Order: sequence, then structure tokens, then C-alpha cells
Amino acid sequence: MTGREAPRLRIACQQIAPAICQQEENRRTAKAAISEALGVGAGLIVLPELVTSGYVFRESDEVRSEALDRAAGVFDEWRELVAPSDAVVVGGFPELASDGRVYNSAAVVGATGILAVYRKIHLWDNEKRWFTPGGDVPPVVQTPFGKLGVLVCYDLEFPESVRALAIRGAEVIAIPTNWPLCPQPAGERPAVMIHAMSAARLSRVCVACCDRVGTERGTEWTGGSCIVDVDGWVLAERAKRDSGLISAEVDLVRARDKALNRHNDVLRDRRPDLYGALTDNG
Amino acid sequence: MTGREAPRLRIACQQIAPAICQQEENRRTAKAAISEALGVGAGLIVLPELVTSGYVFRESDEVRSEALDRAAGVFDEWRELVAPSDAVVVGGFPELASDGRVYNSAAVVGATGILAVYRKIHLWDNEKRWFTPGGDVPPVVQTPFGKLGVLVCYDLEFPESVRALAIRGAEVIAIPTNWPLCPQPAGERPAVMIHAMSAARLSRVCVACCDRVGTERGTEWTGGSCIVDVDGWVLAERAKRDSGLISAEVDLVRARDKALNRHNDVLRDRRPDLYGALTDNG
Repeated sequence: MTGREAPRLRIACQQIAPAICQQEENRRTAKAAISEALGVGAGLIVLPELVTSGYVFRESDEVRSEALDRAAGVFDEWRELVAPSDAVVVGGFPELASDGRVYNSAAVVGATGILAVYRKIHLWDNEKRWFTPGGDVPPVVQTPFGKLGVLVCYDLEFPESVRALAIRGAEVIAIPTNWPLCPQPAGERPAVMIHAMSAARLSRVCVACCDRVGTERGTEWTGGSCIVDVDGWVLAERAKRDSGLISAEVDLVRARDKALNRHNDVLRDRRPDLYGALTDNG
Repeated sequence: MTGREAPRLRIACQQIAPAICQQEENRRTAKAAISEALGVGAGLIVLPELVTSGYVFRESDEVRSEALDRAAGVFDEWRELVAPSDAVVVGGFPELASDGRVYNSAAVVGATGILAVYRKIHLWDNEKRWFTPGGDVPPVVQTPFGKLGVLVCYDLEFPESVRALAIRGAEVIAIPTNWPLCPQPAGERPAVMIHAMSAARLSRVCVACCDRVGTERGTEWTGGSCIVDVDGWVLAERAKRDSGLISAEVDLVRARDKALNRHNDVLRDRRPDLYGALTDNG
């Protein structure tokens, strides 16, 4: 954007196991995960969805008791950790809004504090009982390394979401997730990872999905964290259901070039006049 | 739609090798391919893009000399073949329009003749030199087996296209293609097949892509014809660059149900009010 070649960005996803309604333990887990990722030189660190609280709630009161506002100490902790290297961390939390509503949100935290909060717009299953759906378009955040888009979990299953972020300039999309385990034929990647691969290539953006692991109140998780390059190929993945860090280096300059050849460009070739059904409300 | 259970549909894709500017040979090849597919009980037969003409043109005059109008005899041949079993064939051809323009089109032919012609809206590479881009939304055609959507090749790389067809009721999408061979890491499926898998699952539609094979004026093809079910898994594929028929049986009733669980539905969960960037013209 400045004409200056951007440095390569190391992305890390921390496939950890938040514990349901154990805020203090989850704070420690997230801190350790961020520190480890900084240790490998990560400039973008992605944590799972609802990393401060766990996911499998039993009732609304439980969610509310775990909900945090934007002044919560955990975000100061993240800021203090990433400030020295100007890194950015994206992680999920149940957000208590000033009007008392609770959202399934993701915070983007950098050296100066919270850069953006995104409230998930496509809610999955019981989330519809606990959370208010977000009412704003997903953010594109200017960061030290480039333009960062944010989605949460089920949002990835709406091709409209990734595409709209790319059109608005996102170069890398961070996606905190809690993917419940789904059936998949032998030898296949998890379906959600296939979505990430396709979405990245279709819009020539990097995609970094961070899932969780651990059995929580009987729920098993996919654990398919992945970092996908602009060609749609997986640079790093943790397809099995074990915990740990994955990381990969990407060149975001490539995400600024949408050309496929001298005649084709994945965004300029769009025919928005012929996509009317996409914005019809049924 | 009638309450009556639809019979299962057998889909066939014929990964054949059209010869550039050899209309008579290509007519015979297509006839034989349709006959073979009918022999395995196919109710929907998909042939490659530009199956009547070949693909790698050298100049506009060459394209124009191969262009057919909708009264061309080849479509009568296809109709005669499919009429006894009420099957439907979808195949590509260079279309000479009444105003003299030439389009990269696909014909949908059933027992009564041409049911629809779709003019490709996203043109690839040199196609921009030979063809006028289509100006109409891709069709959803009522057929004996259900609602058929049609795209051609590079259209698949616009997630807007598949999604819009699903919103408009398409249960199965036939995609004649000519996929030039692209690099892919060892052990991976062709990227285009990954797009087909993701697109099918995201909208819970069946997708049937029919590629071509054969080296044409130095161009090699991917040859990744595939039939994908509503869960996004590949039922039949021909990933290698060899010719031949693939077929699979699908239950289109499943494509009419977009529910994932008691709370989620892949189309009703959309948030069109938050997808504005998709229909912005830049």
C-alpha cells in the first residue's frame, strides 16, 4: 500500500482446550498460548472462539456470568503480551454489551489495546438461545502487517462473508472457531477445512482458522485448525484432535494482487449486476 | 415439491476429448457419449464446455466458423437420443446469436428439445477475445427430475454464482468445463474440485462438473470431472487425465432440505442485509 514491500507475516493458531466456566484457568491458558506463539515469531495469533469461557453452556445465566465487557482485564493481558513485538491477537469471548445484551464476539487486540470487536452474525445451534446475533458487517482492521478481516466459526459457511471481506480489502482473515466434530469419509479433510481452502483461493486471501480441542460436557471438536495461503493450499494444519500450535509464514503482498493471468482477476471479473438473488431477503 | 418422493437420479459426466474445429467428429463423439450414459441409466448427462467445437481457438474467424444457432442439427440429435428415457443433456457450444454475437454457451436439451441456453457470464483468458459475455443470470430449469441450474467452467470460481442458483431453487448444478491443467501439491485434489465440494455443501446442492481431456494445440486439461453430493463429498470422480464416463446416483429430495439441525438452515441463516459489498459495482 505504501509501495514498500511488506515483511512476511508469521501466523500462529493455538488449538487449545478452554474449560467451561473456568475464567481464571482460561486466562492462564490463553496467556501461555500467546506467549508460545510470540516465541516462534508470530505477528498474528489466532485463538479459538469463546476462549475466555468455553462453549457448551447449559443456560443463559451461565453465559451471562461469563460475559465480559471491553474493559475486562483479559484484554489488557493480551495487549501487554503482544505490545513489545507489535503483534495482534484475535480470540473469542462472550461479550456483555452496554445495553445488557450478550454477543458471541471476537476481540482484535494489538499494542494499543482493542483494535476491533466483531459480533458473530451467523449463530450456530444453541448459540441462538444464548446470544444476540451481531448487527454489523465483519470488520476489516488496519494492523501493522496489513488488513485483517475477522469472522467466527459458522460465518465461514457463508461464502458471502469471506467474499465481502475480500472485496473490502482484507488480506488475511482470522477465524476463531469451535467446530463440533462432524462425520467425514475416510481420507478426507474436515469439511470446514475444505471450505477454508476454497474460500481462500476464490478471493486470493489468506485464511487462518483456529479450532479448539478437549471434550466439553460430552461435545467433541473437529480440531482442524489450518493456515491457508492465497492459492488455497494448506500451509499448516492440525487435522487430528490434539492440542498445540501451528504456524506458517505468508506473504500478504500476494493477497493484494487478484490477477490470475493477463485477462482475469478474481474480483474484477465479478458480475454484481447478475448476483441479485444474493441480497434478496428471501 | 408435489409431496411425491422423487425417484433417485443417476448423473453421468462424460470426460471426453473434443477435437478443435472438427464438428463432424465432435458430433459423433458426443452422440456416443450420450448413448453410453443412457446405457447406465443416466437421467442427467453432462458433457464438457464447447463440446461441439473444441476450445483452443487461434482467431475469431475460427470461432465464428464453429458457432451454431439454436436450430443446429446437433441439438436434434441430442433430443432424439434422450427422448425415450426423458433424460436431459447439458453440453457446451459456441453460440451464434441472431444479432451476430458469439457466446460461450451451454444447451440444456430434453425430450421436447432445447429447454434452456445459458451464456457464460465469467469469461476465462482468451475467451474474452472470442466471446461476448452473457448478460443474463444463469438459468434454473424445471426438468423431469427436478430443478437444474447451469454454469460453465470459470463461473464455479464465483461463489456468488452457485449460491444465487441455490437461492433460486436449483437442486443440482451441471457445469460443463474445460479446465486447463493447474499446479497442485502432491496428494491434493485439483483446486477446482475443492471448489465444487465446498460449493455443494455450503448450499446443499448436488454439483456435477464435466471436464474434457486430450492435448489440444499444446494445452493440457485437469480432467477432474466430479459428481458431488449435498454434503460436499465426492460420489464419483475422474481425477486423472484419462477419458471416460463417471456416474453416481443422488437423491434430490435431500437438496430441497436446507436444515442442518433444529436451529440452522444454510439459506435461512443468511444475513443479506450484511452482504452489501457483494453487489457493489466496485
